[in-house]
Amino acid sequence: MAEATTRRRGRGGGGAARRAERTAVRIETAKYIERNIPNFEILNDEALEIIEANAETILEEVGVNFVDNPAALERWREAGADIDGERVRIPRGLARKLCSTAPSQFTQHARNPEKSVVIGGRNLVLAPVYGPPFVRDAQGGRRYATMDDFNKFVKLAYMSKWLHHSGGTVCEPTDVPVNKRHLDMLMAHMTLSDKPFMGSVTDPSRAQDSVEMCEILFGKEFVQENTVMTSLTNINSPMTFDDVMMGALEVYAKNNQACIVSPFIVGGAMAPVSVAGTLTQVLAEVLAGIAYSQLVRPCAPVIFGAFVTSIDMNSGAPTFGTPEAAHITYGAGQLARRLGVPYRSAGSFCGSKLPDAQAAYETANSLNMGLMAGVNFMLHSCGWLEGGLVADFEKFVMDADQLGVLHGLARGVAYDDNAQAMDAIREVGPGGHYLGCAHTQANFKDAFWKTELLDYKPFETWEEEGARDTRTLASARVETLLANYQQPGMDPDVAAALAAYVAEKKASMPDAFM
Amino acid sequence: MAEATTRRRGRGGGGAARRAERTAVRIETAKYIERNIPNFEILNDEALEIIEANAETILEEVGVNFVDNPAALERWREAGADIDGERVRIPRGLARKLCSTAPSQFTQHARNPEKSVVIGGRNLVLAPVYGPPFVRDAQGGRRYATMDDFNKFVKLAYMSKWLHHSGGTVCEPTDVPVNKRHLDMLMAHMTLSDKPFMGSVTDPSRAQDSVEMCEILFGKEFVQENTVMTSLTNINSPMTFDDVMMGALEVYAKNNQACIVSPFIVGGAMAPVSVAGTLTQVLAEVLAGIAYSQLVRPCAPVIFGAFVTSIDMNSGAPTFGTPEAAHITYGAGQLARRLGVPYRSAGSFCGSKLPDAQAAYETANSLNMGLMAGVNFMLHSCGWLEGGLVADFEKFVMDADQLGVLHGLARGVAYDDNAQAMDAIREVGPGGHYLGCAHTQANFKDAFWKTELLDYKPFETWEEEGARDTRTLASARVETLLANYQQPGMDPDVAAALAAYVAEKKASMPDAFM
Repeated sequence: MAEATTRRRGRGGGGAARRAERTAVRIETAKYIERNIPNFEILNDEALEIIEANAETILEEVGVNFVDNPAALERWREAGADIDGERVRIPRGLARKLCSTAPSQFTQHARNPEKSVVIGGRNLVLAPVYGPPFVRDAQGGRRYATMDDFNKFVKLAYMSKWLHHSGGTVCEPTDVPVNKRHLDMLMAHMTLSDKPFMGSVTDPSRAQDSVEMCEILFGKEFVQENTVMTSLTNINSPMTFDDVMMGALEVYAKNNQACIVSPFIVGGAMAPVSVAGTLTQVLAEVLAGIAYSQLVRPCAPVIFGAFVTSIDMNSGAPTFGTPEAAHITYGAGQLARRLGVPYRSAGSFCGSKLPDAQAAYETANSLNMGLMAGVNFMLHSCGWLEGGLVADFEKFVMDADQLGVLHGLARGVAYDDNAQAMDAIREVGPGGHYLGCAHTQANFKDAFWKTELLDYKPFETWEEEGARDTRTLASARVETLLANYQQPGMDPDVAAALAAYVAEKKASMPDAFM
Repeated sequence: MAEATTRRRGRGGGGAARRAERTAVRIETAKYIERNIPNFEILNDEALEIIEANAETILEEVGVNFVDNPAALERWREAGADIDGERVRIPRGLARKLCSTAPSQFTQHARNPEKSVVIGGRNLVLAPVYGPPFVRDAQGGRRYATMDDFNKFVKLAYMSKWLHHSGGTVCEPTDVPVNKRHLDMLMAHMTLSDKPFMGSVTDPSRAQDSVEMCEILFGKEFVQENTVMTSLTNINSPMTFDDVMMGALEVYAKNNQACIVSPFIVGGAMAPVSVAGTLTQVLAEVLAGIAYSQLVRPCAPVIFGAFVTSIDMNSGAPTFGTPEAAHITYGAGQLARRLGVPYRSAGSFCGSKLPDAQAAYETANSLNMGLMAGVNFMLHSCGWLEGGLVADFEKFVMDADQLGVLHGLARGVAYDDNAQAMDAIREVGPGGHYLGCAHTQANFKDAFWKTELLDYKPFETWEEEGARDTRTLASARVETLLANYQQPGMDPDVAAALAAYVAEKKASMPDAFM
């Protein structure tokens, strides 16, 4: 990758590229999390084996639907499945066998090689919220998202130390035609940030555009040999694979690009009301989806996804940060590890309309369970509000700060001589204090996680400064970050080539808002 | 216990007691949590053995101070410790051996036997915030706490489904003289609630008063044979046991009442800046404290306590919901289980001045880690604000609602035939939905945790109703709960005897505010 980047930069060769790199502020980005703590295993072996056996029964007896996709049916038929209309019934063990060619982990390359991420194993890669049609901030309230908002979120993600990934549709830029949106979104990720990103899945042709833009950014050969996008293909639970999402998956798999194969489940509506039943369905769906990706191209990188919320059975509203969602997230992690593929779940989930205490309780519950569940790729890890309808600017930086807590937790506990601190305990003795002792002086700088947002001031100071709540502090931080944003350097030839591609594509078709 | 309660009720024998019970609203209280999920074990055996060996080295080489307490020094000398002034050096293994008579779990009886709790094992008992000199609510702001506030918190705790325990000093009633406060506080717990509670520790004589009031409430013989109070005796870390706390512990141990032996540590100030070092000191301190309780009375019930926060090394402020505090809480749980005694830690900790998003992030982090760490008794589980300086009314009910999440998480995952839900998956099939299916109808009522506070309404409804944030919703809930409070029935003779005891005690000494 380092070589590839040098090549890219070398191509332009001019002083402009070097000037751009020199003037760029160096933004600190933490390395993706490499867990040094155990995963939380909520299911015992008996439960796991029952769920796995039941998932095979579902695939065999009930089957899954591949809708409006004759080529998919043909692939399945050749692989040995029983095809009945659009229904695909998969003999016991076949789906799991097909999944065995999927890599257990893969590298997603960023254009800045220092920001490439390894997805899988004990790692956790954090990406921002995905998909909200609305944005909110304290000043402007709730409103339809625009491309200007989108760009701001990409900049904030670029400047957030604990975010490893720029994400995808951080909000829906509703002021751009639907059929051209993906071009502007990709352009933003590619030029305003140097972190890895996601491709478009709203139409197979847009997935193809995403691949072609990556070929400009990374070089055509590099893209075919390496993974440079991780994209989100949802399953229409229960057990339905539509032609749009599968069409996008086909494009990505053929081009060696990663897809998250992700059931989208509101428990009690799209899956049974019980945790074990939901896990069974999730596993059956993911087995079918990942198996299909391997039929398209064996060894294509994939992720076992599980987007699961519980439901308020009175109102039908999806609910977040609940115990049942946590149970499913823990259990699905175990199933993913047994399948030997990376796992995507959790996020800064909440149902609240405001970035208030409800939002924070629900989010903290969800983030903590994501870390403990062994999630490898956490989409929505910051900025999610109102059940995902809203991307909130203040909550984005509030959540992003809490992602630092996950980094700290995952470090685990050192117990070398320095960490044992016996000399310090001997030095201080009963009744003393450690603030000035040698061990504290030597270690305090890295001993504790530091917030960049929260208030630790004495009450009187805090009151004098206006008694600001978290949202108010976050508003100020959003403003400061955006004011200090500096675009990462990029080879001007590449930038020009990307702009030309986008302009040409846009000119090739009329605007469409459907 | 059922027998004991019948006896108490029988004593008054009158219609008044029966009338009082008949008219009382039946308030639902959840049973204490019996975990059906694993504990999170962050330390490996090697780390645990090193920490345990180091703790013995500290006790042997450095020792601990028992201050202004010649009787304690004499007890230690007789047990085989080396006494040098007030310094007690404990030979390797002695403290752990003495701890072996401490029970691994015990029942704390409530006057309502249905609300007795078993502390230890896989259980988790939840008690409210303890100790704040200030209270806060949205209407009145931050102010010194009064007895009126105290009574309100006891009522709220009584009405909170997920609180198993009435706690102790839920706030400091600063309008009552210091030397008489404990009498009014105990009277409130005994008469306004029927949940278990804590005794006074601010002076040995006040501990004795607590025992005597319990003898009136439960019967003298019952108190000597059963545990009816769990009280909080802090260690002045590092390694100092003062005469007030130890005097209270002596009273309680002699009377078979439980004490939490609890280092009070702001990491980097009262303990080394490293997690392993802090755990070593915590273990040494708890070993010494519990061993001492067993010298006073073998088999006296005790709890391994750990109150640990991290510190902001810039300002010196204690910080909450941090990764380092979580590491210590997880590790201390493992040490307590290896010692074979119940474990107290965690709570609704936060540093925020308001019940805002910061408060909720920090609190949710702390509550989740408390559940996962295997905590058996969680003091401060709701209502804590501003580093424990403030008991907040809104946060009390906000946190108390989140305690329901812990109950749900701890239930674990069922995987019987009904939970497997294979019939439902077969019935619904690809593309269907589960809202109306037989399995959902049969199970939805208990399938999901239900909030009694948070907002799940559609955006438009929420906006029409005033766009209320969590704190505003909580204000309304506090008001509703207090308006609907009904005192639990009590034998009027017992109530009169308690009132007479308090009046006599108060008359026996002048007011003191020190």
